[in-house]
Amino acid sequence: MWLVILYLLFGDAQSGLSTVTGRIENVINERTTLIENEIKMMFGSDINLSDSEEKVNEIIMNLKHEELDIGFEEPQLFNVSKHFFEYKDEIKKSKLFQLIKQMPKGAILHAHDTGILSPDYVLQLTYWENLYVCFEGDDLRFLFSKSIPTDTCDSQWQLLRDTRFSSGDVEIFDAKLRKYFTLVIDKPNEVYTDINLVWNAFQNYFIRTTSLICYKPVWEQYFYDVLKALREENVMYIEIRSTLPELYDLDGNVFDSVVTAQSYKNVLDRFLVDYPDFYGAKLIYAPLRMVDASTVKNYIEIAKEIDYTIPGFLAGFDLVGQEDLGAPTKEFLEELVEGRKYLQYFFHAGETNWNGMSTDENLFDAIVLGTKRIGHAFALSKHPILIDEIKKRDIAIEVNVISNNVLKLVDDVRNHPLASFLAQNLPVVLSSDDPGIWEADILSHDFYVTFVGVASRHADLRLLKKLALNSLYYSTVKNKDKLVHEFEIRWTRFIDSVIKNSW
Amino acid sequence: MWLVILYLLFGDAQSGLSTVTGRIENVINERTTLIENEIKMMFGSDINLSDSEEKVNEIIMNLKHEELDIGFEEPQLFNVSKHFFEYKDEIKKSKLFQLIKQMPKGAILHAHDTGILSPDYVLQLTYWENLYVCFEGDDLRFLFSKSIPTDTCDSQWQLLRDTRFSSGDVEIFDAKLRKYFTLVIDKPNEVYTDINLVWNAFQNYFIRTTSLICYKPVWEQYFYDVLKALREENVMYIEIRSTLPELYDLDGNVFDSVVTAQSYKNVLDRFLVDYPDFYGAKLIYAPLRMVDASTVKNYIEIAKEIDYTIPGFLAGFDLVGQEDLGAPTKEFLEELVEGRKYLQYFFHAGETNWNGMSTDENLFDAIVLGTKRIGHAFALSKHPILIDEIKKRDIAIEVNVISNNVLKLVDDVRNHPLASFLAQNLPVVLSSDDPGIWEADILSHDFYVTFVGVASRHADLRLLKKLALNSLYYSTVKNKDKLVHEFEIRWTRFIDSVIKNSW
Repeated sequence: MWLVILYLLFGDAQSGLSTVTGRIENVINERTTLIENEIKMMFGSDINLSDSEEKVNEIIMNLKHEELDIGFEEPQLFNVSKHFFEYKDEIKKSKLFQLIKQMPKGAILHAHDTGILSPDYVLQLTYWENLYVCFEGDDLRFLFSKSIPTDTCDSQWQLLRDTRFSSGDVEIFDAKLRKYFTLVIDKPNEVYTDINLVWNAFQNYFIRTTSLICYKPVWEQYFYDVLKALREENVMYIEIRSTLPELYDLDGNVFDSVVTAQSYKNVLDRFLVDYPDFYGAKLIYAPLRMVDASTVKNYIEIAKEIDYTIPGFLAGFDLVGQEDLGAPTKEFLEELVEGRKYLQYFFHAGETNWNGMSTDENLFDAIVLGTKRIGHAFALSKHPILIDEIKKRDIAIEVNVISNNVLKLVDDVRNHPLASFLAQNLPVVLSSDDPGIWEADILSHDFYVTFVGVASRHADLRLLKKLALNSLYYSTVKNKDKLVHEFEIRWTRFIDSVIKNSW
Repeated sequence: MWLVILYLLFGDAQSGLSTVTGRIENVINERTTLIENEIKMMFGSDINLSDSEEKVNEIIMNLKHEELDIGFEEPQLFNVSKHFFEYKDEIKKSKLFQLIKQMPKGAILHAHDTGILSPDYVLQLTYWENLYVCFEGDDLRFLFSKSIPTDTCDSQWQLLRDTRFSSGDVEIFDAKLRKYFTLVIDKPNEVYTDINLVWNAFQNYFIRTTSLICYKPVWEQYFYDVLKALREENVMYIEIRSTLPELYDLDGNVFDSVVTAQSYKNVLDRFLVDYPDFYGAKLIYAPLRMVDASTVKNYIEIAKEIDYTIPGFLAGFDLVGQEDLGAPTKEFLEELVEGRKYLQYFFHAGETNWNGMSTDENLFDAIVLGTKRIGHAFALSKHPILIDEIKKRDIAIEVNVISNNVLKLVDDVRNHPLASFLAQNLPVVLSSDDPGIWEADILSHDFYVTFVGVASRHADLRLLKKLALNSLYYSTVKNKDKLVHEFEIRWTRFIDSVIKNSW
């Protein structure tokens, strides 16, 4: 008995518990274990790296730590904590950025069709034949037409080619015109002072470019060039969201949403012949949410028709537009419960700063409606119960970090809830929303910003690879083995090239 | 057998599962249950309100919803999502703010002594006799002295009274002088462009006011007036952090930290005689962290001496200063493991935007060192494992929302991690850090901003009451029953007065 007591009192002396060194060791061990457990738990931790990957990882981590350490010492030099417009070109100089650019990034699962390509690209569309322009106040409207359009115009319709060449200076004219195709401005924080202002500018881009891009030949060229740009960005597959606007041609024909969807499918087929190494694309029909219930019912009918007409091309259905101003999803519950029998859902939800307001609670609707993925889910970290549901139901979160910065949800991406999603190893896919409108590269900027600015200093190549793999896993592609296999080929090639070119 | 199959196939038809209405009902029920479960789980949900409290709750929630709904419609009108300086005076007009001002708020568990009172208060200290000033470049130094100080001065020491009255215009002179005692400026986001800049200005306040406030008679008056201000703010108790600087008097005496602590105790005793309804105060010795290990060892010796000299007055120990620039806690592990035998810890940790950097990992050190509470823990949401530890060990998080906004951790408080802490019902106490330096009311602004800007729209009076109760529960006061009983008396009086005055 006494021996037991003695042991309890002093027995640990040798293992250190009652000595100074022992106590310190214990605390250090506890600290180390906690940190290790955290690293073991984080997003990407289940990936095992090959020897070659380990070498690339070392290169990547050296570059990352160097950039972080400079920022830690002098925070004013840490670019990605600022507004995206202030550093978007600057970081292209980063070696790490260039490396990420080369990296196969899997798929894009959250992007809106006409917001993908850059203002430079859109500008060159204005060089197409038969394009008329009408300058109205501070804005303008486009229309392709054989002759002067008869649509009302506050000033007058002019052939854009004539206006451009009679402007005196084509360069200045084009520079002015280009501004209509981008949100990028100097001092964004002084101009876009609240979320509605920036959303207004954002939505005006779509309104302004509709008649330009919805000209059927342009539409098809635009999508072809989207696919080309994705391929060049080392993205192999896309599930593209579209409002499927009506298209038109020079003969006065106007085509409905089903034709728009069909034209996407035709372009895709053509592209896959030209570039057989590209994996493919599917469509998420995502019309505007600022409507009434009967319109939503009609949307669902359109989606069903598309699915019937073009079997296998429609991934599913969503609703888009500024959540805070649009109708909350719960107003369409009846229609969406019915639609669920025919459609998979990929709802935008919780793209908001508000807590407990209707837009925030769209997260609940998305989940109970059986959404396969959630667009943004920015507000998710405020809903622990929904985090559990998302894990349980394996619903992916489509995160768009730069979009959330530009559209004023978060000023410093280090505060983006993605940091906590990654720490908890939630099913995250990373995407770019409308990269063209803020002049981001199609996916590289979002990957870079996430890796350097959002994720932990400890997060490494495994995080990047997992982001790519998740974008395949949470896609609607049926044959995942083939998809992942094709990715692995590209990935191995990338790893080898990094080692070979001794970055 | 067939009956069973038939039942399985159709038996739910009546309960609705296979009818349209039934399916919709099920989805609505699931939605409602999830939202209800979330509300049941959130911070404050364990509080039961009396009938009178329910009445007050209704008043409060009407006011809150009104403010939120205006902001939701027109976000530019939603003040608390902006920089604190832009709305701090404006919200004093809010009826809800005035109500919160009246509300008993329990204790302040995280505030730094010389940062508590307003610039107007500090300005009036410069009217004291025997105060000399030395203007140096853009800055100035103070010193109380019987005759012209012999300390070096880049210009010359002048009796402040003479300078003021020979300035031509006392009002202008005082307005200029006042600027040295506040961080508040116009367009803060354009001036304080990074965290180091604002921390520099912040720390200069402390350096600049040291010789002014460390004059022993001023020191004692300042603390007396802190206690008075707390009482007027309906705060009943404080655990005040102090670096315990050396005090001095006109006779050339310089007093060490133990005397400084003693002078606090003396003032407290005097105050409690004058205002016996005030509950009390304790001291957290919190010297600067930007030091070496041997200095920390010395700090601990000082703390032990204070605890020995003034039994029961010392709540514990902490280290202060900008975490990102100071030494990480792990450098002092050895000293702090030893100190733990004698002292309770209340470490600042994770007051940073960085993820996985040394400052972020101070959170691990604080926890393994057995801290009773954590100051700020802003980075905690990035560490799910530590969230579990905090729950398990019942470590309180001392959140200071407005401080985090002013000191540039978060631009829009709707993104403050406190929102997620409250949703998860973590042990939160709300405090104000250095309210005087940003001209906030001692605790009301932080309560208001948390209630309207951070917490869910659904969070009600129970959240406010729980914040107050937690500040008592997580204090080091031994007789919690007495403390809570005294709070309840004040609370009931408040509830009755709101009803009586029909807000």
